[in-house]
Amino acid sequence: MAFEQIIYSVADGVATITLNRPEKLNAFTGKMMSEMIEAFDMTDADDNVKAVIVTGSGRAFCAGADLSEGAKTFDYDALGVGRGGGGSPTRADGTTDYSHHAVRDGGGRLTLRIFESLKPVIGAINGAAVGIGVTMQLAMDIRIASEAARFGFVFARRGIVPEAASSWFLPRIVGISQALEWCYSGRVFGAEEALAGRLVSRVVAPDQLLAEANALAREIADNCAPVSVSLTRQMMWRMLGADHPMEAHKIDSRAIWARGRQADAKEGVVSFLEKRPAKYPDTVSKNMPDFFPWWDERHYK
Amino acid sequence: MAFEQIIYSVADGVATITLNRPEKLNAFTGKMMSEMIEAFDMTDADDNVKAVIVTGSGRAFCAGADLSEGAKTFDYDALGVGRGGGGSPTRADGTTDYSHHAVRDGGGRLTLRIFESLKPVIGAINGAAVGIGVTMQLAMDIRIASEAARFGFVFARRGIVPEAASSWFLPRIVGISQALEWCYSGRVFGAEEALAGRLVSRVVAPDQLLAEANALAREIADNCAPVSVSLTRQMMWRMLGADHPMEAHKIDSRAIWARGRQADAKEGVVSFLEKRPAKYPDTVSKNMPDFFPWWDERHYK
Amino acid sequence: MAFEQIIYSVADGVATITLNRPEKLNAFTGKMMSEMIEAFDMTDADDNVKAVIVTGSGRAFCAGADLSEGAKTFDYDALGVGRGGGGSPTRADGTTDYSHHAVRDGGGRLTLRIFESLKPVIGAINGAAVGIGVTMQLAMDIRIASEAARFGFVFARRGIVPEAASSWFLPRIVGISQALEWCYSGRVFGAEEALAGRLVSRVVAPDQLLAEANALAREIADNCAPVSVSLTRQMMWRMLGADHPMEAHKIDSRAIWARGRQADAKEGVVSFLEKRPAKYPDTVSKNMPDFFPWWDERHYK
Repeated sequence: MAFEQIIYSVADGVATITLNRPEKLNAFTGKMMSEMIEAFDMTDADDNVKAVIVTGSGRAFCAGADLSEGAKTFDYDALGVGRGGGGSPTRADGTTDYSHHAVRDGGGRLTLRIFESLKPVIGAINGAAVGIGVTMQLAMDIRIASEAARFGFVFARRGIVPEAASSWFLPRIVGISQALEWCYSGRVFGAEEALAGRLVSRVVAPDQLLAEANALAREIADNCAPVSVSLTRQMMWRMLGADHPMEAHKIDSRAIWARGRQADAKEGVVSFLEKRPAKYPDTVSKNMPDFFPWWDERHYK
Repeated sequence: MAFEQIIYSVADGVATITLNRPEKLNAFTGKMMSEMIEAFDMTDADDNVKAVIVTGSGRAFCAGADLSEGAKTFDYDALGVGRGGGGSPTRADGTTDYSHHAVRDGGGRLTLRIFESLKPVIGAINGAAVGIGVTMQLAMDIRIASEAARFGFVFARRGIVPEAASSWFLPRIVGISQALEWCYSGRVFGAEEALAGRLVSRVVAPDQLLAEANALAREIADNCAPVSVSLTRQMMWRMLGADHPMEAHKIDSRAIWARGRQADAKEGVVSFLEKRPAKYPDTVSKNMPDFFPWWDERHYK
Repeated sequence: MAFEQIIYSVADGVATITLNRPEKLNAFTGKMMSEMIEAFDMTDADDNVKAVIVTGSGRAFCAGADLSEGAKTFDYDALGVGRGGGGSPTRADGTTDYSHHAVRDGGGRLTLRIFESLKPVIGAINGAAVGIGVTMQLAMDIRIASEAARFGFVFARRGIVPEAASSWFLPRIVGISQALEWCYSGRVFGAEEALAGRLVSRVVAPDQLLAEANALAREIADNCAPVSVSLTRQMMWRMLGADHPMEAHKIDSRAIWARGRQADAKEGVVSFLEKRPAKYPDTVSKNMPDFFPWWDERHYK
């Protein structure tokens, strides 16, 4: 698979997606968005992939939107394109049709795709992560930062707003007060502040970052049933939006029932009793329970 | 009340429910589930009970599901029983009827019952708490751990998934990233990691555990109006599922109005002004406000 | 503007609302509620106001409800008034009409007004904050505490319940377990416990409190586009109630589109590229996007 702005590799059950415009500090583009979405389609489809790591090449993770268009950067009409590409969001009467797909924010297209991922996603934040460079991380499951990482929710300093559905993700990850303080001030802050505020789970030396991310990916890949991990991911994220624990009980009852009679559960219990590593036969491509997905797709409008 | 797998005792306003299969590390069974649910019916009905403590006898809190059936452990058809007991979830055409009550997960039956509790529930986690042994704690209000406690969301290592409605509870308690890391890895971790991750509120020496739990229970029982505490419990838990603070305003306006004219509120203010301990006359069995419960029961289907 | 129980001042883009009944430890009254609501109407309407600080005069922040009516304090019928003023909540048949506006809790009227604020709100908690004195803070964005601050969710010790929509706000800020422990026990606790439990973002020396709050307000006022800050505030708070990140994507797509063509976004990018301070021309009174507000008002009933 030939990508231009990312590198996609799979080794020993772990996929690594590397943002790869180092000379531009991996600044985000529509092309990068499309390639990342395609990469997540690939990790979902490949049963060899048990976990996904996202990192950046060079000294930045992602410096944010590419500002090379200057004042027109966020003016999609002036640029002559919708951020998502194609069409016109302007009605005959000159008003904007906000339900038009050309209005769709590119960052949100990406985070919503990551939200749907069937594989665990670990962010390995190697350097500056600003604007979309940090909001894209919020749909990832776990963030590990290098001591060299810096973060900035700089939107209010550019006259725009937090995007990529970060108004949904960020307060759920770091709490509403911390989310607002970072977004109001637009300040750029270091890895220690990110750790104290629970934006990242741990901070490690720069040369340990990928090793640490891979060790966590390995812990999952070597010990856990992939179908169980996939179900867990979607159950946890989606129940964040449920209004009552009964909704979780409905789904986990179905999942325990369906999984309990599958080969993985037998192997999981027997291998444990025999004190040996498990070998799980079920695969995400073939053995997800028949009730999956249990939700109706949410459409943009 | 003669229980087989738990011990139920009430002393000085505090009920203690002790999981009591120490020779099996208090492994969870359908019987234990039924007895715990019955115990919570008793604490709700007994006005003498101002708070509930749940702990384990022997060196474990609860080692998880009883695996003595081996490969059939989670295969309810093979076991010939629904986990919740009785009936068949299989339709005439051979497909599974997931709305059938036999499909219902036993852990979720228990946590949903604890969710409904009218009394505060404190987990005193004395030792290993694995699988249902930890997920059952998530509907409790506060967890205090012994230094000897260990925790494990091991479901993906057994080929199943987190149950007991934990996909709803856990991310709300420890955050989505910590929840996913523990559930993805299935690792067993100690009390200090549980404290750092906010799964437990404090860690104490093993021989201080029950004293600490009882001290907290006493602080509630000795100082607070039981009807106020009951309402507080249901307001806080249920508003976790509300989409707007107006929903809380509707209920707390009713509650302040109704409670404000009851004897407890007069005693609460007067005893405070007179700098003396309060004696609250209202009881949970007789004096809950007429709008309680304000919600429609959520059914399994 | 002549207020009786608060002081309202604006200096250099920052409004300060000071609770001002120091001889009564700033105990809360219906009058204070009305004046605070009016003050937030003023901060919303004044484009010079970029951020709002709320603090107390004298040694307390707010000692809670004024208890000078003794046993009748929370008995609105006995007082002859609804807490919100006027009318009767009693039906012809003698039962209470809970949907009647006279039943509405005054604390909730205030927190719901703060929830709607178009400007960032920083609590500078200088001393005792008990009952409504602490719950009123929960709709503020960020709380900074003096080392002299003390907090108490004392409702269960007065025979009433947590109000001011705190059952919605508090668990979202500090987590359900911490929220319940503070509300069950009704204990009064210090600034360090508030910090550890994430009720406040930082603790400073008493004589540094207003300087610290003002420095944060300045960081916002000096660097960020007011329309962006306003939108950010409402996006973050309201998406706390959304059940899916798609809801955030719908709104932030509209916001990026609308803001991206406004003058602020051009100035934000160009000033950044030119490494100079930005001067944002758009104002909250004139330049909020045409889709704002995107929600239907939630009514009391």
